[in-house]
Amino acid sequence: MKSKSLEWREEGSRGIFDCKVFSIRESSCRSPDDEVRKYTIMDAADWVIVIPVIDTPRGREFVMVRQWRHGTRELSLEFPGGVFEAGENPAAAAGRELLEETAYRAGRIEKIGEFSPNPAIMSNRVHFFLAGDLECTGSQELDEDEYIEVEIMKAGDVLRGMGKPPFVHALMGSALSLYIQKTAPGLDL
Amino acid sequence: MKSKSLEWREEGSRGIFDCKVFSIRESSCRSPDDEVRKYTIMDAADWVIVIPVIDTPRGREFVMVRQWRHGTRELSLEFPGGVFEAGENPAAAAGRELLEETAYRAGRIEKIGEFSPNPAIMSNRVHFFLAGDLECTGSQELDEDEYIEVEIMKAGDVLRGMGKPPFVHALMGSALSLYIQKTAPGLDL
Repeated sequence: MKSKSLEWREEGSRGIFDCKVFSIRESSCRSPDDEVRKYTIMDAADWVIVIPVIDTPRGREFVMVRQWRHGTRELSLEFPGGVFEAGENPAAAAGRELLEETAYRAGRIEKIGEFSPNPAIMSNRVHFFLAGDLECTGSQELDEDEYIEVEIMKAGDVLRGMGKPPFVHALMGSALSLYIQKTAPGLDL
Repeated sequence: MKSKSLEWREEGSRGIFDCKVFSIRESSCRSPDDEVRKYTIMDAADWVIVIPVIDTPRGREFVMVRQWRHGTRELSLEFPGGVFEAGENPAAAAGRELLEETAYRAGRIEKIGEFSPNPAIMSNRVHFFLAGDLECTGSQELDEDEYIEVEIMKAGDVLRGMGKPPFVHALMGSALSLYIQKTAPGLDL
């Protein structure tokens, strides 16, 4: 690098691969020093993750889901979440995923932040919600290839478990940081 | 789903696409109910993210880096990090990325956790480190296409900024949750 500027410009892009969950394209980008380089980018629908909270005499608890993950071939304990359906707004997607995966309907749902899952190679966003006033409707509505166990966990145990199996999904750590930002904004780090 | 079991078995896999940063394959997986389905998986080298801390009379601060990200085409303010080189161990990768991107050498470097960036579609891991006893060596060692500005930020401002621009990278939220787990394990959520 020679330029003081940090900003690049995309000059064009061509599709390379497409599947149900994501597509891949090669993007030509002009650097601050006026050189063109190629980067491979993954496009996908936006995702949603929702932290469902229950206040009990034992303290605050989270509704979590345990499921098999094909990328790492292991079980993962996560907040509920999933992929936006076409035309769906983020809060609706959060409520729908929560209901389908856990059978809980949220009386209150609130956005707590938004990230890019990986802005280096992915273009989509993941939207985070806090859900409360939960009412159990009785039964999950799972896709044919979904096998999901619901678990109610103490909030503190989730914090202490993060980054070790079965808390292996990085975006659940992202969710927890937004939860802490919301509930303990004055936390002395 | 009918089975009570959550575990799948991978029966085979074929490569589809390969670039410098990742490759894509189709994985055939047998469900708990004995049905075979296909999933698209991204393989990549492991990544490392390091939280470099400086204790000042103003309180604890983090060394952060601002850079352009091609996936989302925006500037992103992040902890230093990057991709493992072949044969490199995680702590060495953390120290190297820190030194290259920020010019700080760590006298102390400690692993604080490990996640899958996305266990649904990716097979790799991201390793998180805390770095201290920092010594500034004077100048960054950037790749030809890297344009990185170093910024020293108050730790509390990073927590309060997460999930809003320029704190757009989800894995930095994951890192912060591990940092809080380490430094405030008794935090009442």
